[in-house]
Amino acid sequence: MSDAAPFSSVAIVGLGLIGSSVARGVRRYMPGVRIAAYDADPAVRDTARRLGLADNIPDTAAEAVADAALVILCVPVGAMGAAARDLAGALAPHALVTDVGGSKESVLAALRAALPDALIVPGHPVAGTEHSGPEAGFATLFRGRWCILTPDEGTPDAPVAALRAFWEALGANVELMTPRHHDRVLAVTSHVPHLIAYAIVGTASDLEQVTESEVIKFSAGGFRDFTRIAASDPVMWRDVFLNNREAVLEILQRLTEDVTMLQRAIRWGDGDALFDLFTRTRAIRRSIIAEGQDDAAVDFGRRHDDSA
Amino acid sequence: MSDAAPFSSVAIVGLGLIGSSVARGVRRYMPGVRIAAYDADPAVRDTARRLGLADNIPDTAAEAVADAALVILCVPVGAMGAAARDLAGALAPHALVTDVGGSKESVLAALRAALPDALIVPGHPVAGTEHSGPEAGFATLFRGRWCILTPDEGTPDAPVAALRAFWEALGANVELMTPRHHDRVLAVTSHVPHLIAYAIVGTASDLEQVTESEVIKFSAGGFRDFTRIAASDPVMWRDVFLNNREAVLEILQRLTEDVTMLQRAIRWGDGDALFDLFTRTRAIRRSIIAEGQDDAAVDFGRRHDDSA
Repeated sequence: MSDAAPFSSVAIVGLGLIGSSVARGVRRYMPGVRIAAYDADPAVRDTARRLGLADNIPDTAAEAVADAALVILCVPVGAMGAAARDLAGALAPHALVTDVGGSKESVLAALRAALPDALIVPGHPVAGTEHSGPEAGFATLFRGRWCILTPDEGTPDAPVAALRAFWEALGANVELMTPRHHDRVLAVTSHVPHLIAYAIVGTASDLEQVTESEVIKFSAGGFRDFTRIAASDPVMWRDVFLNNREAVLEILQRLTEDVTMLQRAIRWGDGDALFDLFTRTRAIRRSIIAEGQDDAAVDFGRRHDDSA
Repeated sequence: MSDAAPFSSVAIVGLGLIGSSVARGVRRYMPGVRIAAYDADPAVRDTARRLGLADNIPDTAAEAVADAALVILCVPVGAMGAAARDLAGALAPHALVTDVGGSKESVLAALRAALPDALIVPGHPVAGTEHSGPEAGFATLFRGRWCILTPDEGTPDAPVAALRAFWEALGANVELMTPRHHDRVLAVTSHVPHLIAYAIVGTASDLEQVTESEVIKFSAGGFRDFTRIAASDPVMWRDVFLNNREAVLEILQRLTEDVTMLQRAIRWGDGDALFDLFTRTRAIRRSIIAEGQDDAAVDFGRRHDDSA
């Protein structure tokens, strides 16, 4: 075990993009830490064994977590309760249970119901790509990204500090907040943007006067930026919306009001209202680049060389 | 003059991202073609002279176009009429006038009113980045992208073929359609996506319970993909919305209906409706990559190496 590693053994339940990236990250940045892993899908377990993602990939979740100091649930948020129920009675004494789900109030409730005596500190690494599955993960996925932990007020400091150190070892910056605030922040920065991206790609493919082939051909005009996030994992996102319902509906309502205002400005030719908003939003983009949360490379660094 | 160049001399009016990219592209791919250029802003003309973007950058548009076989108007669509009026009486005999504006019905009407005797073939290269100005341009901007030409039914074939050859020399694929159909296609693939991106970035920065600093920090969850296109040139986009009003409002109405349907699915917990849409949109992303209109690199090729 590495001197720096906050946990001597880790069990990862769910080996999709995030779970497999955690496994690869632990291997690279916390060498010596023992990794056990499990996925409910036997084919995924086979792939994970072939990729050598963990030291031990047994055929039950209970076996995977038996010796683990840290258990990380990396399944869609709608599957958290069932995944946690599989662990009941199998956890090591003093094991810390965490997760990576995109909604936190609902996940905390589900984990607590399934594991009433366990020490639980929910977490959410704000990172991902449009790809899914055990082969899509990579060790550096969390580097420079934020990981939000949402411990209860009553949680002792030591496990929270250890979990913070774990995510920092994977390269993430860590921030603490309440589950409720997390759900609101993520509704804005992630959930509603995804919902709108899904909607606009759906709307475009349903039009009678414009063919799908035209939409695809001319997507460089802006549309293609939406398609990337509308290509994210369908099960994961269905669950996020169903589990962060209240905050998503609230932000969506605000957005609808703002779109209606822009619609009216276009209809009535109010160029000043449009110009003012468009100038303000440009400044926010600059801040995101300044804070290192995106790349300043032109056009997301898409290739424009002669071979393109 | 290069044997392959369809025009021996080109005049570019407006030296922003697109105009300066055309200038650089002509220089690289049509060596020997004489380039004259003009921008209404004296500071931009000075920058363009310093960058050596053209052979001749006079202080009036009339001088710039005097000897040009092809005149390309690269100004915001709301400025097309005024830019064209500056050229009245100064065009060479048989000069072909084109433009690069993002809406075509309104631009064609403005150009025809200003230059009733000129040969006009409107055009629109569907390419761009989130940066503006003469220094943002680059020679390969149009390579592998589409350029749409919207000639009238009465236009002779030869000038349309020459303009097609010009854009092909810059690396673009060319497609012909009516101005009306263009405006509808672009409303879907470009204008409404931009409007929504502007709206969502605005909504996020107006929330009371979530700070702007939190929005920026956690933008990797999806939000940052919207901020890139919401950082595009404010004047250009104001003009596009005011000049493609009808098609934009129509597509926006369809999108609003679809978002309302999703909102209802979330409220009533209809996971199947969400899952079905999310699966369908993923397939469209795959088509866009297959057609070479975006990069398959994970996460738009954003860097995930250890230095990030």
